[in-house]
Amino acid sequence: MTQASIITIGDELLIGQVIDTNSAWMAQQLNKAGIRVCRRVAVGDVWEEIWTALDEESKHADIILITGGLGPTADDITKPLLCKYFNGKLVVDEAALKNVNYLFELVFKRPVTDRNIKQAEVPDTCKVIQNKRGTAPGMWFEKEGKVYMSMPGVPHEMKGMMTDDVIPMLGRQFQFPHIAHRTLLTFGIGESMLADLLVDFEAALPAHIKMAYLPNYGMVRLRLTSTGVDKVAVENEVDTLFQQLQELVKDYLVTNEDEPMQDVVAKLLQRSNKTVSTAESCTGGYIASLITAKAGSSAYYNGSVVSYSYQAKEDLLGVDKNTLQTLGAVSEQVVIQMAKGALNALHTDYTIAVSGIMGPGGGTDDKPAGTVWVAVGNNEKISTHKFHFRFDRQRNIELTAMNALNLLRKFIIAQQP
Amino acid sequence: MTQASIITIGDELLIGQVIDTNSAWMAQQLNKAGIRVCRRVAVGDVWEEIWTALDEESKHADIILITGGLGPTADDITKPLLCKYFNGKLVVDEAALKNVNYLFELVFKRPVTDRNIKQAEVPDTCKVIQNKRGTAPGMWFEKEGKVYMSMPGVPHEMKGMMTDDVIPMLGRQFQFPHIAHRTLLTFGIGESMLADLLVDFEAALPAHIKMAYLPNYGMVRLRLTSTGVDKVAVENEVDTLFQQLQELVKDYLVTNEDEPMQDVVAKLLQRSNKTVSTAESCTGGYIASLITAKAGSSAYYNGSVVSYSYQAKEDLLGVDKNTLQTLGAVSEQVVIQMAKGALNALHTDYTIAVSGIMGPGGGTDDKPAGTVWVAVGNNEKISTHKFHFRFDRQRNIELTAMNALNLLRKFIIAQQP
Repeated sequence: MTQASIITIGDELLIGQVIDTNSAWMAQQLNKAGIRVCRRVAVGDVWEEIWTALDEESKHADIILITGGLGPTADDITKPLLCKYFNGKLVVDEAALKNVNYLFELVFKRPVTDRNIKQAEVPDTCKVIQNKRGTAPGMWFEKEGKVYMSMPGVPHEMKGMMTDDVIPMLGRQFQFPHIAHRTLLTFGIGESMLADLLVDFEAALPAHIKMAYLPNYGMVRLRLTSTGVDKVAVENEVDTLFQQLQELVKDYLVTNEDEPMQDVVAKLLQRSNKTVSTAESCTGGYIASLITAKAGSSAYYNGSVVSYSYQAKEDLLGVDKNTLQTLGAVSEQVVIQMAKGALNALHTDYTIAVSGIMGPGGGTDDKPAGTVWVAVGNNEKISTHKFHFRFDRQRNIELTAMNALNLLRKFIIAQQP
Repeated sequence: MTQASIITIGDELLIGQVIDTNSAWMAQQLNKAGIRVCRRVAVGDVWEEIWTALDEESKHADIILITGGLGPTADDITKPLLCKYFNGKLVVDEAALKNVNYLFELVFKRPVTDRNIKQAEVPDTCKVIQNKRGTAPGMWFEKEGKVYMSMPGVPHEMKGMMTDDVIPMLGRQFQFPHIAHRTLLTFGIGESMLADLLVDFEAALPAHIKMAYLPNYGMVRLRLTSTGVDKVAVENEVDTLFQQLQELVKDYLVTNEDEPMQDVVAKLLQRSNKTVSTAESCTGGYIASLITAKAGSSAYYNGSVVSYSYQAKEDLLGVDKNTLQTLGAVSEQVVIQMAKGALNALHTDYTIAVSGIMGPGGGTDDKPAGTVWVAVGNNEKISTHKFHFRFDRQRNIELTAMNALNLLRKFIIAQQP
């Protein structure tokens, strides 16, 4: 099977100043195309370390994809290094130069500098892949049957180049087997208990099919992966097993697609032509941002009142001042009133209301940090739940959002005939 | 200089199903402690590939940190592999077993299974590092002067173990030089123009000080890194150079600390004892979630109206129906009315209002996807700006948020005497 290795270059990756989202995206695309990614390596802007990484990864993989280090500044050394590594000399690529001039004159509307023009230089031993979204061109090298493809590190430039050119070119160069993935999402069961439930199923899986457990935020994603040459046979076999798997976990099953919780809720709303709103205190707009990250969400989402203060809860959601003062903002009565207020103010079929203490500060003896009340419902019925999370602020916010969306999901399903 | 390599294990990293945030965090902590991370490698749940990674990384680094593959399920093979790699045999660790029993009985409130008990087994050739946040213990191995530390992949478990035990233990085992970083953030100048501005400064830097350009979302972060044995000398030298750098970029300088834009705004508000609110259409609560991600934000943030529908704009922010119908939601008049509405409804000193088309759909000839209006202001003055972004939805949302926060930052500074 054709194997790929991804090398990402940049000191910022090694001091943790940025999170590497590029190589996850690249891995997804390669996998879909039938190429197994066997390794991902990050190295700094250091000549010998990049050189060694090229040497080593060419032993592990047939395709070496490289991102980063192509910028116009002194810390970007990938291009001269590749030039030397592949015994070339730098020459101006006319199409790349035209692109640099076009971008500066018509898009960025800034004068072109010598530094920018240098971006159009490439080693004469590579095939140039034009960058339609930025100034640094891609470079495709071949050596001893292996392909080395260098791309800019700017995510949208790299993504465009991969989709438009690199994946199709790899497809023409190599013979790929078929890879099939099936993913489902469970909620409310731990990894160990799930593994116990699936022990016989897992033991009976054929050797070319792997199952992985991917736990996150109270959920466990299960993934079946099968590889083979005959596409139809691979897909049929994995479909049959995936059916069995769904049946085994049916009490915990959220979705049998590789999609986040918020998209499951979105589909339920779209199918039933219903709308939702949110009233968020402790999640501070995070649930709203998850829902609206999806294009077209305005069809079923009217908005949120992020009521971070008592006054906002009273003024915008009609929460009773007396309830707030006697029971506190983190109470069942307040989330019920918030939910009713959001249904009323935002005119939706369903709503989610959350109020809690995300920490690290703000907790008390009877309401420690991590205490959260969630209400979901419609004009007929409001259902409430209390949670005690015990993590850091970010994780508590994420868990609150996921649990609230899951409660709404179950509420909507329970409403359906 | 002591070098570390981070190995992350899991097929999910190689098919791009999860983004590796662990190794960025680990790299940050190691760097702060004076340990240079020279490589980060991700490999799948494949015996030979993990084995090879251990062999190879021990050639590159003195410290090899390993995360992932310690779960209770069949795809988790790291523990038996490490046991074999370090010539040990699996034995039950009594403290780890006690911890598993404690977690299941008192925290998870679920019965302990055999699978969970197996989590307490460790190779007898390691030093066991107890996991206070989960069931899988950490394992510290030493071989030929190198340290190998295996930790669980669950982020909060790994983070706790690193902070409580691993970093202090490494500090006792190795002699570290001093590493100093200074980071500043610029807005409104491209990487190339910045490099031109700094060409003399960069050329004059001593060899042991590196400067890196980290561009992202219309901003460029600049980082100076210095290494040496004498802490005071290292700090003083880098401080002097950092002062010069700040002076050179002063027209674009947002902050001279390594902090996000929203934290700069938060500090300005806290220092002047002022409050802010948001009225978000196209960003759908994302600006609110950025502000409230920070503990203590309720001191200066009252909330947001996420007005995703026309009706929400009218009802909650008092936007005029006629203005919406004649000029459309993405117009200067509407964001001005949204800003005034938010100041009024949320009773804050300042506000941010945004309305735009984030794409990919929803654009028209005169308002293509990426068109955004932003208003920032207070009760005396509202300032508006129109933007044309040309990226994908996620990037357009991020750019809108960053530009809106930057406009508010400038507005607040302009208000100050």
